[in-house]
Amino acid sequence: MSIPGKMKAVVLVGPDKIELKEVTVPKPGPVDVLIRVESVALCGSDVGLIKSPFPGQPPYGEFIIGHEYSGTVAALGETVDEFKIGDRVTVEAHNGCGRCRNCRIGNYTACLNYGNREKGHRANGFTTNGGCAQYVINHINTVHKIPDHVGFDEASLATNLGCVLYGFETMGGFVAGQTVVIIGPGPIGLSASQAAKALGAGKVILLGTRDSRLEIAKNTGIDMVVNIREKDAYEVVMNETDGIGCDYAIESSGTGPGMETAIKITRKQGKVLLLGFPHKPFPADFENLSLNNKHILTVRGEGWANVGRAVSLLDKKLVNLKPLVTHTFPIEKIEEAFYTFNNRIDGAVKVVVKPQGRQNENSTFNCNT
Amino acid sequence: MSIPGKMKAVVLVGPDKIELKEVTVPKPGPVDVLIRVESVALCGSDVGLIKSPFPGQPPYGEFIIGHEYSGTVAALGETVDEFKIGDRVTVEAHNGCGRCRNCRIGNYTACLNYGNREKGHRANGFTTNGGCAQYVINHINTVHKIPDHVGFDEASLATNLGCVLYGFETMGGFVAGQTVVIIGPGPIGLSASQAAKALGAGKVILLGTRDSRLEIAKNTGIDMVVNIREKDAYEVVMNETDGIGCDYAIESSGTGPGMETAIKITRKQGKVLLLGFPHKPFPADFENLSLNNKHILTVRGEGWANVGRAVSLLDKKLVNLKPLVTHTFPIEKIEEAFYTFNNRIDGAVKVVVKPQGRQNENSTFNCNT
Amino acid sequence: MSIPGKMKAVVLVGPDKIELKEVTVPKPGPVDVLIRVESVALCGSDVGLIKSPFPGQPPYGEFIIGHEYSGTVAALGETVDEFKIGDRVTVEAHNGCGRCRNCRIGNYTACLNYGNREKGHRANGFTTNGGCAQYVINHINTVHKIPDHVGFDEASLATNLGCVLYGFETMGGFVAGQTVVIIGPGPIGLSASQAAKALGAGKVILLGTRDSRLEIAKNTGIDMVVNIREKDAYEVVMNETDGIGCDYAIESSGTGPGMETAIKITRKQGKVLLLGFPHKPFPADFENLSLNNKHILTVRGEGWANVGRAVSLLDKKLVNLKPLVTHTFPIEKIEEAFYTFNNRIDGAVKVVVKPQGRQNENSTFNCNT
Amino acid sequence: MSIPGKMKAVVLVGPDKIELKEVTVPKPGPVDVLIRVESVALCGSDVGLIKSPFPGQPPYGEFIIGHEYSGTVAALGETVDEFKIGDRVTVEAHNGCGRCRNCRIGNYTACLNYGNREKGHRANGFTTNGGCAQYVINHINTVHKIPDHVGFDEASLATNLGCVLYGFETMGGFVAGQTVVIIGPGPIGLSASQAAKALGAGKVILLGTRDSRLEIAKNTGIDMVVNIREKDAYEVVMNETDGIGCDYAIESSGTGPGMETAIKITRKQGKVLLLGFPHKPFPADFENLSLNNKHILTVRGEGWANVGRAVSLLDKKLVNLKPLVTHTFPIEKIEEAFYTFNNRIDGAVKVVVKPQGRQNENSTFNCNT
Repeated sequence: MSIPGKMKAVVLVGPDKIELKEVTVPKPGPVDVLIRVESVALCGSDVGLIKSPFPGQPPYGEFIIGHEYSGTVAALGETVDEFKIGDRVTVEAHNGCGRCRNCRIGNYTACLNYGNREKGHRANGFTTNGGCAQYVINHINTVHKIPDHVGFDEASLATNLGCVLYGFETMGGFVAGQTVVIIGPGPIGLSASQAAKALGAGKVILLGTRDSRLEIAKNTGIDMVVNIREKDAYEVVMNETDGIGCDYAIESSGTGPGMETAIKITRKQGKVLLLGFPHKPFPADFENLSLNNKHILTVRGEGWANVGRAVSLLDKKLVNLKPLVTHTFPIEKIEEAFYTFNNRIDGAVKVVVKPQGRQNENSTFNCNT
Repeated sequence: MSIPGKMKAVVLVGPDKIELKEVTVPKPGPVDVLIRVESVALCGSDVGLIKSPFPGQPPYGEFIIGHEYSGTVAALGETVDEFKIGDRVTVEAHNGCGRCRNCRIGNYTACLNYGNREKGHRANGFTTNGGCAQYVINHINTVHKIPDHVGFDEASLATNLGCVLYGFETMGGFVAGQTVVIIGPGPIGLSASQAAKALGAGKVILLGTRDSRLEIAKNTGIDMVVNIREKDAYEVVMNETDGIGCDYAIESSGTGPGMETAIKITRKQGKVLLLGFPHKPFPADFENLSLNNKHILTVRGEGWANVGRAVSLLDKKLVNLKPLVTHTFPIEKIEEAFYTFNNRIDGAVKVVVKPQGRQNENSTFNCNT
Repeated sequence: MSIPGKMKAVVLVGPDKIELKEVTVPKPGPVDVLIRVESVALCGSDVGLIKSPFPGQPPYGEFIIGHEYSGTVAALGETVDEFKIGDRVTVEAHNGCGRCRNCRIGNYTACLNYGNREKGHRANGFTTNGGCAQYVINHINTVHKIPDHVGFDEASLATNLGCVLYGFETMGGFVAGQTVVIIGPGPIGLSASQAAKALGAGKVILLGTRDSRLEIAKNTGIDMVVNIREKDAYEVVMNETDGIGCDYAIESSGTGPGMETAIKITRKQGKVLLLGFPHKPFPADFENLSLNNKHILTVRGEGWANVGRAVSLLDKKLVNLKPLVTHTFPIEKIEEAFYTFNNRIDGAVKVVVKPQGRQNENSTFNCNT
Repeated sequence: MSIPGKMKAVVLVGPDKIELKEVTVPKPGPVDVLIRVESVALCGSDVGLIKSPFPGQPPYGEFIIGHEYSGTVAALGETVDEFKIGDRVTVEAHNGCGRCRNCRIGNYTACLNYGNREKGHRANGFTTNGGCAQYVINHINTVHKIPDHVGFDEASLATNLGCVLYGFETMGGFVAGQTVVIIGPGPIGLSASQAAKALGAGKVILLGTRDSRLEIAKNTGIDMVVNIREKDAYEVVMNETDGIGCDYAIESSGTGPGMETAIKITRKQGKVLLLGFPHKPFPADFENLSLNNKHILTVRGEGWANVGRAVSLLDKKLVNLKPLVTHTFPIEKIEEAFYTFNNRIDGAVKVVVKPQGRQNENSTFNCNT
């Protein structure tokens, strides 16, 4: 595989301003691989940092965005024998410094040296260059092989599922036979619904407000989806649980009412998992929490190597992320891709960009290439 | 449902001596139900206690054996509204005293008042009368509703699966994407193989010496079964795990060589789960354990209400125990049933006895009635 | 020890109306003991339920209040050999039903049959008669022997410490070498400060607004107490933790600002423990929680038998609750006792009532009788 | 602080052959510090690898031994701001590769690239040069600041205590109020006894066969020490636990009888912690383990950063390791030091070597310099 000197990359050049530029292909360090990117999925965080910079972000004009991607290994760092050239891979975003208190005991997504490149921290697409480009450098800790039958588009969503599974691990991980309610059928909520089912949950109930998204869940085998504009969430959950409440409530809407519902529908001694990132404080019923011994657990990123588990579930076809990829665009159409994603054009859920330019420029195309 | 005054029951009348007797149908106490037994599965423990008494066992001549059974609720104790007459149910064996240090924090299978009926402990088929009879009394904590589509024969094996799931919970429960090796394809090992798969394990490898049992595993979807008379267990596992070893080794053969293998094939920081009950001390490589930070976890019974999870997995058809029920007999043929079970006649795995006598006496019949 | 037929008891006769009445001494059931009460501590919950009834409360005119008490065993239920007459004991409030999903696995303070006496649930002083009386019945699961050198007054506070220790267990329990910040120097916060120290915490910082209470903490060996009216809590904690934040923040003020501070001062991947019972919803910075992978854990009561641990820490003199008992009154002065407690007269922290009437009526007296 | 070009070091030159040599002072890499060693404690592992090489050991003639040491920071790697020159520090042995499955999630003492220096693994004194020298290089992850009042000799034992605390964390860490029995009063067992006490254990019982070592325990406040040549271990423990057995049994004798005792004395659902490294397989009663739901947990090294906790306990004076340092020698007397340690001359427990040569050569001297 010959590697060109130059490549196309989506560079953030200023607030609210991205540009497709030609830049130098980077070289992997001793513990890195160079990945030839095939698919990169847009994420709400991309939208956020384009709008106003995130902490530790590289300078405008240099910063290549994109943190959910997949591709093939194109070159190896000098100490790397964990991968070989040509391996099909997906990635996770966070590589911890390895030397702070949190990283030392494995909590690398909560690295205390976040954004400190010199000390070893990297979060591609956040604090170091990302994968919305034809090539990208990844520390090997952030790279996972994918099986042949898992397409690049689906694989580019593995981080979503990794976050979800990190959440499950945080909650104890043993949902077999339990009732899990998911609030918010976005990419994370849809992934969480399938993950709950894959791990043997007794009942999986997905609550949302958009029928198109609830429909996607149904098509992936989630039996009970409820439009909470039509039915009362609390009543539904109580009916399904003999009035006890659910064992786990997973909040992935990132909203105050979502959290309010989550706290309310959880049974005594149950757990609320916060998978969304709410943007401002909102009132919460802490009396309900404490009187009923309910806990709130959170997730930052795809910790504890759960992208590896995610790939395994895709491998076994226990989770199917393909229906979440509603649109794909060549990298040249990056603006249209973001427009489609932001405005949920044609029911867009996940929009995937294809940096290798082998697509027909004039149409979106099927994700399962 | 009219309840007769008398019933048939298999009574242990002396060492190695059981008799089908007519006895009085018992009456449920305030927190009990009376179950009309449809299926009772024979277990190695039955064989053991018939041979020589277990601690806390009721007197010869009174003791009705049998601890794995299913049936329908026939009468309710005065405070019971958790069940209603006619509910199809399966059971678990252990009801803790509720007042010892272990029971108080939920570890009822390790009750410190084991065998002390006055203080509330009961283990049907061990320290109180069991279900190898037409009727049996169960404390409601030991009763679980089963869905209509789960047959009584399969349901009578739920305790096996409950033990397995208690083991998984003890190990942390989050085997998604992990490699699980099971040693010994008996009823517990076969259940464990399926449970590992159902909970999203990345690889499930079953090791055994009898092809007929390994074949049953294959038929229930376990991809990799290995006859260790033909292949070296250590080599197989190392090949499948890039030389690292498995994440979890589940010993269910109850033998010294089984435990030796389990310790050897587990990766550094991995866990060995002892699901079998070895009968005498045997040498173990504790240096391997400590140098490699491997842990040995054990299971006593179907703790932490895991029979509930078991029923859920049967309900979802994520585990299929039907192929384990190789033979059924009417209760009148109890001797033949034990003979078949003990001598593994015709590849017997689980042998189920039917107390309600509605079968053709002259033949075994299909378990999925 | 002869037991009289009648006894003095503080009965709740209507909203905001308690009366010292003469009532019949109750008789213990099969798994109960009768306790001759020596000391009963007033608690904020008593104040709450006197004002307006709590769920499951016995009828006005019958309900004897009081849930934090100690005394001697005066009579035994027929199956009880765990205690003997004359044993000095303290209690915990919650006895679960033993048959709901939560109780079965040991979570009895979150019993799903709360208030259902018929099914076995009891919470003395909440849903069954309490200990603000000369005698009281307790299920043996709620009784703990105390060593001779632990006074009844101090022992009556064991439940407070039990709640705290249940919280520590919920957080993982291994605070050795960690930084623990406690917010709110009430009885629970003062107990938590000492418990953190007793369990080997590296730094214990107590934040409060009342110097008199902070002073009590100092006298029990808490090195760092901070009046947050004088210093900024966030700055103090960051200074003490190299800018990282504390490992555990324990909120025991029950206020919105307390929770706000707790969330803010906790390090990435740290834990917030909610020990207070906030009475109305208030805004919380969930973005801080999720971006930083912080968890909120709660405590309902003195779960998982932690009153046993509490007694052990008192026995070892690792925790000293005596300085929290600022006032004692004979039971005849129950109104004055509540007045002193409610209005924090003379810096009242815990007020203890003495039902056995052997005190000088005209003065408060030393608690370590 | 001027650093010389050459230094004294104890080099392993062949099987059973160490030499005090003059070698070049090494230079720290980007994430390292250079430590000027003040105290290095001899350990059974040193004795083992001198006798026959351990896996991954550097070549004879180059390998500087010693893995338990303390000193002052003499030089900093280019990215290091976590320490400054002159900091008093102690160390831990293991620095994981940071890239294998185990290291990624914090299990660095179980690194799958053990001995692979190129991939980043180092275990000073095992697979890279150790601290039985005047200077040594340490990755900053293996360095911990110590307070002024903790002497270098005591601090050199921090790894022992770190191993113990890692074991406690592995067991759950919440021994408050529990009964802990320690078998084997060597350096690890003596440390474990004190740690159990420091973490609030209800009862700490130390079993051993040498009165001199049991005496040391007594002098550090361990109430109950038992010479099992005089009393039966099982009886003692049963007497102290109302016949239930201990909650935690810590095996630190590394012997078969020690493990046999540990399994026997543990209560149902209790845990056995294996802190010793037994050298050959021995029979164990697995039936006792499985029938009683007991678990065996192990420790490899001082994982999960527990040396940090160890230093904190020394700082708080909750653990006192000084009495364990029975002898000190200047580095020139390394042979005598080993002779004393191996043959337990004059009741030697821990023998500390002083590389900076400022001691009177002709006598041992007090450790608390």
